[in-house]
Amino acid sequence: MKIKDIGGEFELIKRITGKAVNDKNVIKGIGDDCAVIYNGNKYLLVTTDMMVENDHFNLKWQTPQQVGMKLMEANVSDIVSMGGKPTYAFISMSLTKETSVELIEGIYEGLHISAKIHKVIILGGDTTHGTEHVFNLTLLGEVDKSLVKYRSCAREGDIICVTGKLGGSTAGLKLLLNNKDGYLLDHLEPKSRLASEGEIISRYANSMIDVSDGLGSEVRHICEESNVGARIDYDKIPLSDETIKSAEIVGENPEDFALYGGEDFELVFTIPQNKINFLKKEFNEFSIVGEILDSNKGFFILKNNKKVVPKSGYNHFG
Amino acid sequence: MKIKDIGGEFELIKRITGKAVNDKNVIKGIGDDCAVIYNGNKYLLVTTDMMVENDHFNLKWQTPQQVGMKLMEANVSDIVSMGGKPTYAFISMSLTKETSVELIEGIYEGLHISAKIHKVIILGGDTTHGTEHVFNLTLLGEVDKSLVKYRSCAREGDIICVTGKLGGSTAGLKLLLNNKDGYLLDHLEPKSRLASEGEIISRYANSMIDVSDGLGSEVRHICEESNVGARIDYDKIPLSDETIKSAEIVGENPEDFALYGGEDFELVFTIPQNKINFLKKEFNEFSIVGEILDSNKGFFILKNNKKVVPKSGYNHFG
Repeated sequence: MKIKDIGGEFELIKRITGKAVNDKNVIKGIGDDCAVIYNGNKYLLVTTDMMVENDHFNLKWQTPQQVGMKLMEANVSDIVSMGGKPTYAFISMSLTKETSVELIEGIYEGLHISAKIHKVIILGGDTTHGTEHVFNLTLLGEVDKSLVKYRSCAREGDIICVTGKLGGSTAGLKLLLNNKDGYLLDHLEPKSRLASEGEIISRYANSMIDVSDGLGSEVRHICEESNVGARIDYDKIPLSDETIKSAEIVGENPEDFALYGGEDFELVFTIPQNKINFLKKEFNEFSIVGEILDSNKGFFILKNNKKVVPKSGYNHFG
Repeated sequence: MKIKDIGGEFELIKRITGKAVNDKNVIKGIGDDCAVIYNGNKYLLVTTDMMVENDHFNLKWQTPQQVGMKLMEANVSDIVSMGGKPTYAFISMSLTKETSVELIEGIYEGLHISAKIHKVIILGGDTTHGTEHVFNLTLLGEVDKSLVKYRSCAREGDIICVTGKLGGSTAGLKLLLNNKDGYLLDHLEPKSRLASEGEIISRYANSMIDVSDGLGSEVRHICEESNVGARIDYDKIPLSDETIKSAEIVGENPEDFALYGGEDFELVFTIPQNKINFLKKEFNEFSIVGEILDSNKGFFILKNNKKVVPKSGYNHFG
């Protein structure tokens, strides 16, 4: 039986991780951006992300530095989305007989550039040999017990917000795939939010997740884990001028890039209405895009006053 | 410039990890089996290991269960060799469109079998898509500050010891590569020593490392990190009857399997002469194979009363 026959990677993950973890120190096992482990007066966070050449990055388009930066930013974003601060990184690489030293040095330069921004220390890893380039980064982090944010704590009435602009990474990818000129930086160098920003949001939000697989997929995760419904207002999805222009060039809707693309590494959070103004005084780079509803109202997108059923997120085995 | 042009993976690692880590909480960064991080009244250990199909495992020969077991045992062995106890595991997988659900379920069964033996909790990971099977496991562990063992603390006069028998994994591999019948279990199901055994040894030993790349390579690491020389007594290398028989079948020396093979996951440790009897009362599954010498005596193997220069360990890019 192939993975696509059971519905893709998310179904596979459900199968192999079916057993609940029974350990008093495990606060959160499978099912969030990071694992959360009791560790004295703080929680230890752990996340891991694997990137495969031509699936997650493309050396025709990206410099080795940009590949390294993306690997680090993707993992940092998982830590930040829990309200945490990244600490130590461990990198495994599968290289080929043809891999150049310059390529790996470039990737490490990129890793170090992002590591410096996010105050991450690269502590070790493993180097081995295969027939394609595969990189895995495991990142540790820490978070105050009182600040940790999950996907599972959204409440009916919460306002759904996103930081920054969405769809930029997919917009750049679409230009590249269609051989068009335009703005590529959001795709080539996606940036995680800073831990300090995630921490401020954590003081007011009920739930948080980062945008790895598109706004639609992330809000669906929040709904499933929090047992709530949600409405996304299609015309409120924040888009940059560059993303709108790129979408025009390739003849697609930029909102769809935001909903079903991914790797923008912005934060999606849900927050009680009466806390929004408090948050705004400390951090205001966010937009309101919808509302958390009772679970029996389901999860839908409101587009031209009509309910649209959101498509599923990106599936590697679709 | 290719990786082999600069001398292989170890040289590459030296290049990319050249900068010393400057963080008060990092006790040991690059250069041992695990990273060691200050964590309250204990040390946190972290190790990561990547396995690529047809390089580290072969589904023609191994069952998916055995692949999963090997991935877990390899990482557990790194934690045990520091005197530590493994705790939480994180698994990344790059799968292909043809990967069967049964294969992954089998691998997870194997992971869980070994996890149960070593009291490891599997907490999460990442699943993605590529053109070959790549698995990465990151394992956390903990160790008492007073018990942590490094490669770098061997002292002149220490006796070099190894647990169990060596060369079994390579012996099995040689049979398979030569299409010969014989004893394969040491290759198909290599087993890490238990944390309780590593802990006992830690109370008496000065330095410790596990056998990933062969006794020769491991003692060389101890010499380099401890700035000492060493003598390995060729005829004292402990071999099982099965390994001796397999070597006969393929017409090679079984001692060479022990010295230059690998993945036996036994422990190599150096211990002051006067502590050996104390250790023996608590744990005696070990053999004396040599002695730590002054650095100006170098590192050599004594074979038929002649000094032999040890070959380098296995190099994925050789």
